[in-house]
Amino acid sequence: METLAYYNGKIGELDEVSVPFNDRSHWFGDGVYDATCAANHVAFALDEHIDRFFNSAEKTCIDPGIGKPELRALIQSLCKKVDCPDQFVYWQATRGGLARRKHAFPREEGDKACGGSGEQAAPPANLWVMIIPSEPADTTKSQTLLAVEDTRYLHCDIKTINLLPNVMAAERAAQAGYDEAVFHRNGRVTDCAHSNISILKDGVFRTAPTDSLILPGIARAHLIRYCEELGIPVDETAFTLDDLYDADEAILSSASKFCISVSAVDGKPVGGRAPELLGRLQDAAIAHFKRETVG
Amino acid sequence: METLAYYNGKIGELDEVSVPFNDRSHWFGDGVYDATCAANHVAFALDEHIDRFFNSAEKTCIDPGIGKPELRALIQSLCKKVDCPDQFVYWQATRGGLARRKHAFPREEGDKACGGSGEQAAPPANLWVMIIPSEPADTTKSQTLLAVEDTRYLHCDIKTINLLPNVMAAERAAQAGYDEAVFHRNGRVTDCAHSNISILKDGVFRTAPTDSLILPGIARAHLIRYCEELGIPVDETAFTLDDLYDADEAILSSASKFCISVSAVDGKPVGGRAPELLGRLQDAAIAHFKRETVG
Repeated sequence: METLAYYNGKIGELDEVSVPFNDRSHWFGDGVYDATCAANHVAFALDEHIDRFFNSAEKTCIDPGIGKPELRALIQSLCKKVDCPDQFVYWQATRGGLARRKHAFPREEGDKACGGSGEQAAPPANLWVMIIPSEPADTTKSQTLLAVEDTRYLHCDIKTINLLPNVMAAERAAQAGYDEAVFHRNGRVTDCAHSNISILKDGVFRTAPTDSLILPGIARAHLIRYCEELGIPVDETAFTLDDLYDADEAILSSASKFCISVSAVDGKPVGGRAPELLGRLQDAAIAHFKRETVG
Repeated sequence: METLAYYNGKIGELDEVSVPFNDRSHWFGDGVYDATCAANHVAFALDEHIDRFFNSAEKTCIDPGIGKPELRALIQSLCKKVDCPDQFVYWQATRGGLARRKHAFPREEGDKACGGSGEQAAPPANLWVMIIPSEPADTTKSQTLLAVEDTRYLHCDIKTINLLPNVMAAERAAQAGYDEAVFHRNGRVTDCAHSNISILKDGVFRTAPTDSLILPGIARAHLIRYCEELGIPVDETAFTLDDLYDADEAILSSASKFCISVSAVDGKPVGGRAPELLGRLQDAAIAHFKRETVG
């Protein structure tokens, strides 16, 4: 197959599969997702992404309707079906039930509250998978950023499909000729529109704490791990736009970018003052990816 | 027909119509909507709802791909196809193009920026309509509210399908036995999960100003108009939870509720101290609706 679309067991190319009108993604963006990249038909860091996916589902009281091992096996098998070995691998769960539009969860006979017990009010989720060919990450490139006020909801720790502010910010950046948008809220740098951002300053790796204002990126967690292995001190405290402008290096991380440097923000040059340290992190990221995928 | 689903010209019952996998509602909630109710197969205040729909589309740079008169005629004709004369009438536009998932807008050959010129970067939207039977509004009922912190994005003036915080709040209220959730942000009462909220105090109708923290409700605008007709002073300034607790009457308004009183918030009795004034507003709402629909 050139591409793969999966919806509740139906499989086809992206333009062959369709979705029932009553899926709750249509009215509320009522779903959570996760994504990684694959090489050699092997999805990278799949367990970590599946763990985060289940965390997103738990925080939104969505019952994925499948266990972690079964989801892992499903994704692994679907990666084998797509011809191109380098892939973008995406999956999501939209709140179950195809009932008529209503804000509160659909109910099943005998259901229980979504609360401490972990039991769900809605039927099991609708499960989606999308796999498309993708260029391998290229850490030799750098990106330019446009600073945009962060107007997202206060649940940025949950990977949901309520992404319209991200879409608008990414478009603003693209229209102005930048590669990405960097969000700031009340002076604090939070996330980029579709990546995390960290900085290197005076030999220290600084990245925002995983509170409700940032996405707990898997690539970000990997960077912290590489720092520990390489003896680079890590400071998990929030930083400001001024800190970003003054950084020795600024780093974008995501499932598809791994560890890419920033060359400018709002047209002003940024970074480029700690290339050796940056290079060690990039080498660690590429080595980790190759070890897990190509083997 | 018992129900009606419409997607880019396809028409069927809700469980017959399906949506292409690549619709951007699926990945980003990248769409805007509006809704009203109908009696006698006639959609109420349709021009005002269509105006708001086009405002939402403009603010998100979505090209609806249809003019206002054509959309009006389409909705009117579809309302005639559904057997039940009392209807919930919903339509939405999701950002056009069925390209692969990418945050920035899909591009068409020769497109222009989404900016002052009003020209769009993305192809015309995918157009959806949903019509289902609905009970007529009953203003003799009152509702109970649960106060919930407002964690929505800062674009609440735009009617988009990024509604997960509304879903979660509505579910919390339902689980706790309340009819609706009322949002508050930094002490200010904003919206309910799926309605506006206003209060009557000392003979004055008080409702939040239409800034980016509240939805500019059509039913809310109607209430202001009724007040002007009835000689009731209107104060469009924000109010707090304490103001809500101390209100003579608290009023929910929405396309399906019109003007419904609140009987309690967080289990504490609220309102009931200006029933005559409330009744005049409710009578005006019902008379307006009947005049426009049943004729």
